[in-house]
Amino acid sequence: MGDSFGKLFSITTWGESHGGGVGVVIDGCPAGLALSEEDIQLELDRRKPGQSRITTQRKEQDQAQILSGVFEGQTIGTAISILVFNQDHRSKDYDEMQDLYRPSHADFTFDAKYGRRNWKGGGRSSARETIGRVAAGAIAKKLLSDIFGIETVAFVTQVHDISAEIDHTSVTREQVDANIVRCPHPETAEKMIERIEAVRKDGDSVGGIVSAVVRGCPAGLGEPVFDKLTADLAKGLMSLPATRGVEFGMGFAAVSMKGSEHNDLFEARQGKIRTKTNRSGGIQGGISNGEEILLRVAFKPTATILKPQQTTSNKGEPAELKGRGRHDPCVLPRAVPIVEAMINLVLVDHLLRNLTKKNPESFKKLVT
Amino acid sequence: MGDSFGKLFSITTWGESHGGGVGVVIDGCPAGLALSEEDIQLELDRRKPGQSRITTQRKEQDQAQILSGVFEGQTIGTAISILVFNQDHRSKDYDEMQDLYRPSHADFTFDAKYGRRNWKGGGRSSARETIGRVAAGAIAKKLLSDIFGIETVAFVTQVHDISAEIDHTSVTREQVDANIVRCPHPETAEKMIERIEAVRKDGDSVGGIVSAVVRGCPAGLGEPVFDKLTADLAKGLMSLPATRGVEFGMGFAAVSMKGSEHNDLFEARQGKIRTKTNRSGGIQGGISNGEEILLRVAFKPTATILKPQQTTSNKGEPAELKGRGRHDPCVLPRAVPIVEAMINLVLVDHLLRNLTKKNPESFKKLVT
Amino acid sequence: MGDSFGKLFSITTWGESHGGGVGVVIDGCPAGLALSEEDIQLELDRRKPGQSRITTQRKEQDQAQILSGVFEGQTIGTAISILVFNQDHRSKDYDEMQDLYRPSHADFTFDAKYGRRNWKGGGRSSARETIGRVAAGAIAKKLLSDIFGIETVAFVTQVHDISAEIDHTSVTREQVDANIVRCPHPETAEKMIERIEAVRKDGDSVGGIVSAVVRGCPAGLGEPVFDKLTADLAKGLMSLPATRGVEFGMGFAAVSMKGSEHNDLFEARQGKIRTKTNRSGGIQGGISNGEEILLRVAFKPTATILKPQQTTSNKGEPAELKGRGRHDPCVLPRAVPIVEAMINLVLVDHLLRNLTKKNPESFKKLVT
Amino acid sequence: MGDSFGKLFSITTWGESHGGGVGVVIDGCPAGLALSEEDIQLELDRRKPGQSRITTQRKEQDQAQILSGVFEGQTIGTAISILVFNQDHRSKDYDEMQDLYRPSHADFTFDAKYGRRNWKGGGRSSARETIGRVAAGAIAKKLLSDIFGIETVAFVTQVHDISAEIDHTSVTREQVDANIVRCPHPETAEKMIERIEAVRKDGDSVGGIVSAVVRGCPAGLGEPVFDKLTADLAKGLMSLPATRGVEFGMGFAAVSMKGSEHNDLFEARQGKIRTKTNRSGGIQGGISNGEEILLRVAFKPTATILKPQQTTSNKGEPAELKGRGRHDPCVLPRAVPIVEAMINLVLVDHLLRNLTKKNPESFKKLVT
Repeated sequence: MGDSFGKLFSITTWGESHGGGVGVVIDGCPAGLALSEEDIQLELDRRKPGQSRITTQRKEQDQAQILSGVFEGQTIGTAISILVFNQDHRSKDYDEMQDLYRPSHADFTFDAKYGRRNWKGGGRSSARETIGRVAAGAIAKKLLSDIFGIETVAFVTQVHDISAEIDHTSVTREQVDANIVRCPHPETAEKMIERIEAVRKDGDSVGGIVSAVVRGCPAGLGEPVFDKLTADLAKGLMSLPATRGVEFGMGFAAVSMKGSEHNDLFEARQGKIRTKTNRSGGIQGGISNGEEILLRVAFKPTATILKPQQTTSNKGEPAELKGRGRHDPCVLPRAVPIVEAMINLVLVDHLLRNLTKKNPESFKKLVT
Repeated sequence: MGDSFGKLFSITTWGESHGGGVGVVIDGCPAGLALSEEDIQLELDRRKPGQSRITTQRKEQDQAQILSGVFEGQTIGTAISILVFNQDHRSKDYDEMQDLYRPSHADFTFDAKYGRRNWKGGGRSSARETIGRVAAGAIAKKLLSDIFGIETVAFVTQVHDISAEIDHTSVTREQVDANIVRCPHPETAEKMIERIEAVRKDGDSVGGIVSAVVRGCPAGLGEPVFDKLTADLAKGLMSLPATRGVEFGMGFAAVSMKGSEHNDLFEARQGKIRTKTNRSGGIQGGISNGEEILLRVAFKPTATILKPQQTTSNKGEPAELKGRGRHDPCVLPRAVPIVEAMINLVLVDHLLRNLTKKNPESFKKLVT
Repeated sequence: MGDSFGKLFSITTWGESHGGGVGVVIDGCPAGLALSEEDIQLELDRRKPGQSRITTQRKEQDQAQILSGVFEGQTIGTAISILVFNQDHRSKDYDEMQDLYRPSHADFTFDAKYGRRNWKGGGRSSARETIGRVAAGAIAKKLLSDIFGIETVAFVTQVHDISAEIDHTSVTREQVDANIVRCPHPETAEKMIERIEAVRKDGDSVGGIVSAVVRGCPAGLGEPVFDKLTADLAKGLMSLPATRGVEFGMGFAAVSMKGSEHNDLFEARQGKIRTKTNRSGGIQGGISNGEEILLRVAFKPTATILKPQQTTSNKGEPAELKGRGRHDPCVLPRAVPIVEAMINLVLVDHLLRNLTKKNPESFKKLVT
Repeated sequence: MGDSFGKLFSITTWGESHGGGVGVVIDGCPAGLALSEEDIQLELDRRKPGQSRITTQRKEQDQAQILSGVFEGQTIGTAISILVFNQDHRSKDYDEMQDLYRPSHADFTFDAKYGRRNWKGGGRSSARETIGRVAAGAIAKKLLSDIFGIETVAFVTQVHDISAEIDHTSVTREQVDANIVRCPHPETAEKMIERIEAVRKDGDSVGGIVSAVVRGCPAGLGEPVFDKLTADLAKGLMSLPATRGVEFGMGFAAVSMKGSEHNDLFEARQGKIRTKTNRSGGIQGGISNGEEILLRVAFKPTATILKPQQTTSNKGEPAELKGRGRHDPCVLPRAVPIVEAMINLVLVDHLLRNLTKKNPESFKKLVT
């Protein structure tokens, strides 16, 4: 339970880091969308390991195969299955994990829940699990951009205590991908890269913040009560590995504002009702208002470090764990495409859900 | 769509602020739980308006009736329906809302979504919608406390820029309810109350932070991928009106820590595997680890203020809105029982879901 | 669990026969549908007890109240709550049920499942539970007829061993409601009524068959694999009390046909692709093909009879049960509106689901 | 949408007959079940084509690979992905299908729904889709038999107009698999085989009935309202290709019985409360009562026949279709393992759901 996400554009992911492979089944993609394996691969390449000197040095090609749901280059409306076989099993790195609990990993909690775990790596809690999300997100992104003109751009705004101010209205994906830390402020990016290299040499790790903007989202997405757009985005983003917090618009900073300072006043601009400011981050009462959607996600420092750490065995005996293996000293650069994927999956789901909300007369045309 | 929450302990709420009433149907409550209307009323009274000089002065008794699912004082396993009739309709306060959009309310987004709205109040986006959540949460709370020994305590830790340090291990609900702002630090509470009274006199409003601790939660709750305990808590909490952010454990502060500073080392204490520190806030890899669950929720300042504001009509004509009606200058005191309710609803749902995860041999006993 | 039905037009029912009341929450009804309590009451009156000499003589007015989701005569897109208070509690009729299991009722299975039951009547297994379905079905019917020109007509085609051949293409609801047994063949209806009165005098009961036709359903409703239109209709209909079987098109008679006899050949008629015959009953591969949908539902004889029956107590002691109370000697006449309601609920749900299946270009118009 | 089935033991299938492959993801299988690829293969071999002279002569090995969710021979509680690559693409057999609609197939309805289809075979409506169900059903079967002592046996009781009376209490799977038509009455089986061979020679096809018995099912499975055990079984079975009806216990024959003839009286046997007869087929009020579950499923004659048939092109032009390819003249023999799989999937799902229904005190032991 809990391997599916989305109500109408529904994805089910599967796979452990050290098993046969990982993948995703997408149920609910409309028919008639042009789709190729290249569309998927493009996003997978943005998240794959070994892409730069500041990510893990594991080499995994993560080559996607589409096994169903696409015919002659177009989606046909039925379930799309995407598969990535696992490679580069260097599982001897994990031998000591069989009995020892890595601090702030999910080894202990998986054992507590299931009474066993795939100890040759992180199993289902490995970040490798996100491959399925990114593959599905690539399809969501294509629907959003090709058809609806909606664009999501995520970027790193903080690494450890180094932060950047980014103009979310103008930032482009090209700027984001222009450097290996994916912070679209070149000078700050340099500092972040240095910091990551420094902590890596020290066998340590750091956290950071990914910010995101959605442009072109129409007003009306999100359901009034539990499935608010904020709520579903928060769920999707907090289901990503290593996330510790999420905020929308002014977020936690709204706390120390007064209503008269925080409220977004309405005005008419170019014949449309708009807000003068966007402290709400594009979502009011849980429903998009047509302005840019703005959010921020906090990632903790990678739990795997190379410094020795005190821990216990699964029998409670004290032990010392020496970090090994090849891991990201900072997940932020590779988190960017993953955050984008989750946002796009939520948006497509709510676009489809919103189709059923209109005046009956208006959707009568579609049905008949 | 979107009026239901929870997979196994599933609630469906209904009702607008100015209609026949509000209520909730709870589907999945186990049979055999002692339950009375008083159990429900206790929590509703903590959220009801008019309870103090710093909340809205509307007088609504919010009297709960249980219409099904309880027989001779016990739940019988079938759907529990709870109803609260609406009272105190002073809807003439809302007459000007028919055409005008209140800034940072959901008037505009509801119109954008549905092409119409119940303009006599906030309709489904009114905080009155949370009555159903609190009523259902009272049942969840009873299951947690009577049977599992799990206790959730929420409390106000910040109002505007006034914040308090609270020892989450020792704080009690009695301390929380000892003052009208529900901050269990009496001196700070006084300052918060003064601040709320000041902004109210000024026709303005303020936001704040509700923190919460869950004690006694067993390890193993939460699903590995999308339905992580953090993810479902985030969704539940971000579906509450006026929330702008949520964080777990160290939250956004984890960003500027190193892995060696943030990791929680394991040790054996009293024969149990425990963490020495609890920076993870009791959840690792999305699954509870048996430590205290710690989280914080950011609430924006109330959108309704009495100062005049620029806005437009639903036709885009400029207009000035003069705030009227009786509203909370700060939602925090009444948000405390609502936050507790959402946390308890998520916990019960995951407790039930976890029942199906064990070794087949162990649950065989239960089934047969 | 299990009190909700439908994915996009989702209903949650609640209530026992001898509790505060029964009701339903409808989540997902599009905004802008004209709806009044009279629309609901019309269908409830067709199922209510005491409507004729061949139904139970209990007098229940079953007066529906709409408590939310409707404003100024139109649906507003949010959850619609409908409530019917219980009346006519003559529960002393049930005193002996406290310990004894009525044969072929759900007393024993509820005790086996929950360890307790509301023994003052059938509780949640009472046919009174279907009030919520019929109320929600009235809304579905209105959407289907007012907007899509789809009409469902159900009718009795068999009572005990008396059956009627009905021309499903021409039969009208007026013909169905023209007699108290709801068989639109007047001569056969007379015989059925006589039979029901005879078994009633004998303290016994009889079963029968409800047939139904759906006219005007567009091609394309139903999902290819698990949520076939046949599958969802079968689930809905087999969830009705006292049903024992369901069949579509030729049904069980198809078994002894050859492919060359059963296949429906295609032809063009009036510029549309149609089938020459309709042995498939309007559904092929689980998806509607634009022809009339045809189905039949088998109902067993009412379990409650007035003849004495052998049974046991809940402790397994032998006992004799003397039937009492006022029950339907044949559920068929009142089953007709219930079958219609379930069919209409499934159709609306699939109409909404189908909205999301089209070419992205086509629904782009709706969303933006 | 509609590619998933089951609430707690949830399966998602994917794949078309002429694409990369077919498969299934199982979400919710408890940890600790011994499971190998052989367990899966055993059931796939019972449904695979080419297994006898009365099934299609296509040769597909349908070799299952488990890609996730199993570690060191045991399930680990996370999603199990099973993959079968497609082989034997002789898709030139399908060239004329590109434009022509095969009568009583889903070609027309898929085009009506999606505006396109994978015309190289039946696509998602091909019976090949059931591989995923059978693979998942093999796991369900293992849970049921190894842990709960529950056994499902399905068998052919009718082919065309040749029917057999089978003692459902004593019939074994060995008897069923002892002949190629899977009717456990050897003399009748011979006649059925002759009939199938005769219609095949004639280029025609026939339908039939699969009956099934479940032994050892505890009382208490099934939910009171919509998710009755009958309802979920009916949905599962009516979602199988070529099914036209389903009935439980006496089924349609109950219609012409009186209540005094149909009711199952209770008695105590060996200290347990049992029914003297089992006309209810083991399910009362939608909940299992501990007796044998009995049901029957009607299958239509295979739509593919080798006789020429009138049809139209997708533009409505008249055309003649000459059947080609290698198809089953009767689906019944291969339907037996598929029916068993669906029943077992429903039973496991309801066993898990029932875990959450007990007295809180009883499940407290499991959780903590």
